[in-house]
Amino acid sequence: MRATIMYGAGDVRVENVPDARLIEPTDALVVVTRAGICGSDLWPYKTMEHSEIGRRMGHEFIGIVDAVGADVRKVKVSDLVVSPFLYSDGTCIFCQEGLHTSCLHGGRYGYNNVDGGQGEAVRVPQADGTLVPLPVERDNALMPSLLTLTDVMATGHHAAVSARVGPGKTVAVVGGGAVGLCGVIAAKRLGAEQIILLDRHPARIALAKEFGATDIVSERGEEAAARVREITRGVGVHSVLECVGYEESTRTALSIARPGGAVGRVGVPQDEKMPAAMTSFFNNVTISGGPAPARAYIEELMPDVLEGRIEPGRVFDWIGSLDKVPGGYRAMNKREAIKAMIEF
Amino acid sequence: MRATIMYGAGDVRVENVPDARLIEPTDALVVVTRAGICGSDLWPYKTMEHSEIGRRMGHEFIGIVDAVGADVRKVKVSDLVVSPFLYSDGTCIFCQEGLHTSCLHGGRYGYNNVDGGQGEAVRVPQADGTLVPLPVERDNALMPSLLTLTDVMATGHHAAVSARVGPGKTVAVVGGGAVGLCGVIAAKRLGAEQIILLDRHPARIALAKEFGATDIVSERGEEAAARVREITRGVGVHSVLECVGYEESTRTALSIARPGGAVGRVGVPQDEKMPAAMTSFFNNVTISGGPAPARAYIEELMPDVLEGRIEPGRVFDWIGSLDKVPGGYRAMNKREAIKAMIEF
Repeated sequence: MRATIMYGAGDVRVENVPDARLIEPTDALVVVTRAGICGSDLWPYKTMEHSEIGRRMGHEFIGIVDAVGADVRKVKVSDLVVSPFLYSDGTCIFCQEGLHTSCLHGGRYGYNNVDGGQGEAVRVPQADGTLVPLPVERDNALMPSLLTLTDVMATGHHAAVSARVGPGKTVAVVGGGAVGLCGVIAAKRLGAEQIILLDRHPARIALAKEFGATDIVSERGEEAAARVREITRGVGVHSVLECVGYEESTRTALSIARPGGAVGRVGVPQDEKMPAAMTSFFNNVTISGGPAPARAYIEELMPDVLEGRIEPGRVFDWIGSLDKVPGGYRAMNKREAIKAMIEF
Repeated sequence: MRATIMYGAGDVRVENVPDARLIEPTDALVVVTRAGICGSDLWPYKTMEHSEIGRRMGHEFIGIVDAVGADVRKVKVSDLVVSPFLYSDGTCIFCQEGLHTSCLHGGRYGYNNVDGGQGEAVRVPQADGTLVPLPVERDNALMPSLLTLTDVMATGHHAAVSARVGPGKTVAVVGGGAVGLCGVIAAKRLGAEQIILLDRHPARIALAKEFGATDIVSERGEEAAARVREITRGVGVHSVLECVGYEESTRTALSIARPGGAVGRVGVPQDEKMPAAMTSFFNNVTISGGPAPARAYIEELMPDVLEGRIEPGRVFDWIGSLDKVPGGYRAMNKREAIKAMIEF
């Protein structure tokens, strides 16, 4: 079968690999119908050292179940299913608490003999715990929005939940990439009164306004923080969604939270230390978030997608077939595209 | 009048200063009956550069109202009152939200022509918002425990609340100083099932056990973290109370929280950056806390003190008169005393 392999920074190829197949009795074999390129796939695309073996890519996908292991009970052959970006058993103490990202038997796609999502098929471990059936056909017009439930919309939602967004709250979203845009959707969905997007890219800003952003701040660093304070009459916002992960964006996020406010961080930190420890301390700012338990959120968010109340699929502005994947990475990396979707 | 002045590291003196007096119409003049030396007073005691003017010390005190300004309505002359460690108006948006530490018209004792608490009298700004009357006489046996409501018991409680302690939770308290010991009291009061104290000092450990600590970990750094994980069957604790503020203690705190857990930090950070950003991120650990809104907690905690359900006053193991204050600093700094109380 064909699958995406990264061999180093800027070096992504689609190549022949061994066919995906069942190994464990709890596995399902899923033939991929749609997949996404994630903002987090760009980190190795920018920095990965050359590897002879390469690394299988992709963790956002929808597909059709082609076979199931002997112990799989819920998932059926021919089901159209969506997978969260991590697999999980659904039964351990952390899954029971809704924190599937810390599943004791879970893991990542593309590692330890598990396929990546940017390929023709995937062996999905812990299939019953991981996969969620979709009540639509494979070419339904809602497919882009349903694909965002694998990661990006769940992550935007997690940022908002972690930042304690609720009715009447003032919100700032730091970073208008695909996750930040979904954060705007999530903030509006949860009842935010004011949603300030911090970004300077025209296409992102335009989409953010359609999603519900009320104010745009295009300054950077301390100037951005000053502008947010000005907009909020010197106080800062109740909730900050940190959707980037750089030191500067984290510092900005911490400095625009109002006293007693919360920062929900979902941008993968690029540094071992976190800035602004003292400022956030004296303001009693809560710092929360991490990888989104997408599996827990899929069922919560799916009705809103199916009934058209939210349209996160609009973040996909690049669509191509599997053999075009290297171009999708290039477009996202050059910021010519917000997010890329692969159609099979 | 006599008051405590710090002139530099290790240099604390009790000297004559101008009598405290009313300045603003919202002031009260309080004649101090008890005062405390705070763990945070030891930071300048260790590090302060020499100053010719010096710095007025103390922010934990109980006293009798001697005079009130023209606009003071609630506080009356002759009231025995307790003050939280910051003054606050009680009416601004942050006070209304219970975050009196961020009061728009609040401030610190010992600064800007406001007296310190380690002296014979204090001008208390925003008296109606700040002071809480005590329903006992000035020499009541509960006075030490009531004095802890100014700061240390409120701070331990804030650590526990910020760390989301509740019935059945597993808790670790990092640091068994006076705040950590009050954190043990607070954790037990809020229903924690297991309370692990991280400290190695025998007197503190003994008191912590009486307050409700179920396990003691005397290792440090990574060994301490490993021991906590062992005690919690590899999982970590739901709630961590960080009561020190050093980089190492913060790293330990973040590393022993279980996935989805919370760290309540009340130790004033001694570094601008916070360690372990990535670990806490991937585990979805929430970091909360800051200076305790003691004013908000006094009314909540006072009934438990008055009815003897909690005895935080036991953290005072050094008692002396005002002229003995330099000895109190020395004893606390050498760890010969947990906490010092001044009787007038």
